[in-house]
Amino acid sequence: MRTDSGPAEDLLIELNRDAGVSLHRQIETSIRASIQAGRLRAGASLPPTRTLAAGLGVSRGVVVEAYQQLVAEGYLASRSGGYTQVAASMPPATAGAGAATSTACPAARSAGSSAGSSAGLSAGLSAGFRVDFGYGRTDVSQFPRAAWLRSVRTVLTTTPNDRFAYLDGRGVPELHSALCDYLNRVRATSSVPGNVVICNGYGQGISLLIQVLVRRGATRIALEDPSSNDDARVLAGAAGLDVVGIPVGPDGVQVDALHRADADAVVLTPSHQWPTGGVLPAAARAEVIRWAKSRDAIVVEDDYDAEYRYDRSPVGAMQGLAPDHVVYCGTASKTLAPGLRLGWLVVPPHLVADVAAAKVLADRGSPVIDQLTFADFLARGEFDRHLRRMRPVYRRRRDALLDALRTHLPDLEPAGVAAGQHVVAWLPPDLDEAAVVTAAARHGLGIHGVGPYRIAGTGPGGLIFGYAILGESAIAEGVALLAAAIREVRGP
Amino acid sequence: MRTDSGPAEDLLIELNRDAGVSLHRQIETSIRASIQAGRLRAGASLPPTRTLAAGLGVSRGVVVEAYQQLVAEGYLASRSGGYTQVAASMPPATAGAGAATSTACPAARSAGSSAGSSAGLSAGLSAGFRVDFGYGRTDVSQFPRAAWLRSVRTVLTTTPNDRFAYLDGRGVPELHSALCDYLNRVRATSSVPGNVVICNGYGQGISLLIQVLVRRGATRIALEDPSSNDDARVLAGAAGLDVVGIPVGPDGVQVDALHRADADAVVLTPSHQWPTGGVLPAAARAEVIRWAKSRDAIVVEDDYDAEYRYDRSPVGAMQGLAPDHVVYCGTASKTLAPGLRLGWLVVPPHLVADVAAAKVLADRGSPVIDQLTFADFLARGEFDRHLRRMRPVYRRRRDALLDALRTHLPDLEPAGVAAGQHVVAWLPPDLDEAAVVTAAARHGLGIHGVGPYRIAGTGPGGLIFGYAILGESAIAEGVALLAAAIREVRGP
Repeated sequence: MRTDSGPAEDLLIELNRDAGVSLHRQIETSIRASIQAGRLRAGASLPPTRTLAAGLGVSRGVVVEAYQQLVAEGYLASRSGGYTQVAASMPPATAGAGAATSTACPAARSAGSSAGSSAGLSAGLSAGFRVDFGYGRTDVSQFPRAAWLRSVRTVLTTTPNDRFAYLDGRGVPELHSALCDYLNRVRATSSVPGNVVICNGYGQGISLLIQVLVRRGATRIALEDPSSNDDARVLAGAAGLDVVGIPVGPDGVQVDALHRADADAVVLTPSHQWPTGGVLPAAARAEVIRWAKSRDAIVVEDDYDAEYRYDRSPVGAMQGLAPDHVVYCGTASKTLAPGLRLGWLVVPPHLVADVAAAKVLADRGSPVIDQLTFADFLARGEFDRHLRRMRPVYRRRRDALLDALRTHLPDLEPAGVAAGQHVVAWLPPDLDEAAVVTAAARHGLGIHGVGPYRIAGTGPGGLIFGYAILGESAIAEGVALLAAAIREVRGP
Repeated sequence: MRTDSGPAEDLLIELNRDAGVSLHRQIETSIRASIQAGRLRAGASLPPTRTLAAGLGVSRGVVVEAYQQLVAEGYLASRSGGYTQVAASMPPATAGAGAATSTACPAARSAGSSAGSSAGLSAGLSAGFRVDFGYGRTDVSQFPRAAWLRSVRTVLTTTPNDRFAYLDGRGVPELHSALCDYLNRVRATSSVPGNVVICNGYGQGISLLIQVLVRRGATRIALEDPSSNDDARVLAGAAGLDVVGIPVGPDGVQVDALHRADADAVVLTPSHQWPTGGVLPAAARAEVIRWAKSRDAIVVEDDYDAEYRYDRSPVGAMQGLAPDHVVYCGTASKTLAPGLRLGWLVVPPHLVADVAAAKVLADRGSPVIDQLTFADFLARGEFDRHLRRMRPVYRRRRDALLDALRTHLPDLEPAGVAAGQHVVAWLPPDLDEAAVVTAAARHGLGIHGVGPYRIAGTGPGGLIFGYAILGESAIAEGVALLAAAIREVRGP
């Protein structure tokens, strides 16, 4: 199965047993970096896991775990006979592809993000709910105020004056660098500081992108169906783009439908489909990228909450697979606070100037003190620390939700992976979604159905449970209220 | 000359000699508030200055000064025989007109603001200038870092959690209130918190307004000629609006031309025309407002640098005269730092919802920590303190510039009032503006001509001197370089 593409057995992997980073993660990082840098080319075979493990002096399971992660991300492909190759879809090294190093932990932002946000917010503000499962809400009571203030103090005492003047539209260089370090390490992106544009949250980011796409002649944009029903959908409509929905299955978007969509761009939430919670598999990622390359289309990767994966490391960002065709979108709204209005785009090199110009015209750049503060906060490791603190908090809330559903509503079917700040649960066929939502409200429970987020598709009824700001007892109470509402709908 | 419109002699004015506010200012504030609240109606005569002075136990000059200020602002009109009346153009009380109280000091933001900003910035970045008169630059080395940090600390230790979640598009209530207090006091606006929209600087503010105007059917916008050549001009063109220039004279825009323009809106810099420096007189203000009312048009008042008036109190904002027809635009870019990207609109009640919706679609609201910090900074009096500190700094720089011009280039003719952060000086007819700018660059001097900022009009050549970030010796050196350049242009 070896090809001529590259001597993968010469793979240079240096392990550092004192690095505080797991060995499988170090192996994974080395291989991914080699692929991104073009040192390992499409079709190159990797050493058998047993061979590489022996060579490195680690157990075979460590290598298997590293390979599996890279297969899931689309960098590697498994072949019959137990061989593993660099995926055929992998490009040679691209402009802007530095040696990405991915080491630790999960990373985040919510597609329900701003999307979810406003609907979730309005639900949250509706009077009279005893419990509110409105989605898109981050637990801002956990905002790391003291650490943030320390970073503000550093910024205000050390930043050179010229950072407070007008800057170009992309943002402050300190944050470009800090984000590249973070995203390449945690989200396996392939980003360089020159390709980063800071914006006021994902909401502004997608607005700028749609403006740029329209100006470059785009006429049709594909969105996941279901997906957030503000942001991209509203903006694309207002900009005169045709919007076409691509059906979503348990594993995210169905790529065959994308091929028929005749679209110039697609907006995806591949790490955690919003709202249904699936993860786009490696083969589908590769297929989406082939699609984008074949028609010179743009993939917008809304990586809204990838920092929160509870059962394993999150799958790396698609952007790392094709930095010339994918715009990566991140946000601090799910990890820190929506009120920061802090988001970032990693933009293919040929679009950076256009996106920056759109940003200048929109508002001449984002406020600098927050940008500099976040750069310091990232560089100090405070962001990683905050995420380490928050993950178990949200995971406990998710577990409490699933436990309560199992107990009180065993015929609801929770979907998606263990991640994020919300869960969709499908309703059994006898229950009408709208009737359940209405009855829930009568019982003092705020909750959204999946239906309003569908574009053209139909499908089973479902409910979106936002659990991020609810304590475990409130979650249990909410599910009990829902169970009472459903009993009422079903009647005697 | 008395009319039936109102018993102006019953005018209730209470003076507080311990208030730390000058008596003429207290009188002016009381009368303005009475007019805005509808207690004094159009045509009502005011007491003769001598009578009012005797009644209040103050010298006649104090009353004269108060009346003159209100005449300049368009609230009062002088009649033959020494009578003073409430101006015929004054409306009855309007929605959103609280009891405005105007007490102290001048207020600021630069029409050259963002406008000027980018050109000024680019000039500032051009390599190799020994001195750079690029405009639109604020002295950010004077940014009050310690006081700002104190306000950030207060915000991060006292603000309720919910302020860090998604909010509506208008911004945080704390800043709406603090700005209304400030603007009603210092800029004589008639604003209420519910009409304020916080945005990312004037650049975003005018972008949102143009979007709203277009959506409401506007097809043609009038701009001052000359005026800033980015912002409104670029945005209006991109939005498909016809742009028509209204010639500017020594006293600002020429209103007769506005009548012929058939426009749905006009953008003005009435407190300090950018770039020529005139102040729009009371009669012209009243005429602009009559124009707006007669065709239901919108006046956008770009109050970019009104905080910096050096010879007298600044003329109050036009918005106070007609809050239903004027959108007031303010910014922190000239007073604190452009990098804050902090601006505010006071919007006529019937447009508030549309502007807020445009803001939500653009970016879901401005970042909250800066907003809360600025609210605290205003409420503590730190903003007034900062302005008191900066006014003499800029005035000295302006004086140094005018001194140097008088000495080295007596045939240049400085224009405009003693205000702001830039001066235009007209060139004598024998000097070609472009030739002077080019020769100046050869001599190591960065400076912009007025020509590029003209829309359709022609007029004398002129130079724009931005002096805000230059020390007095650099200013003198710059003028000497310019003199050398002009000698070269004139030849032997």
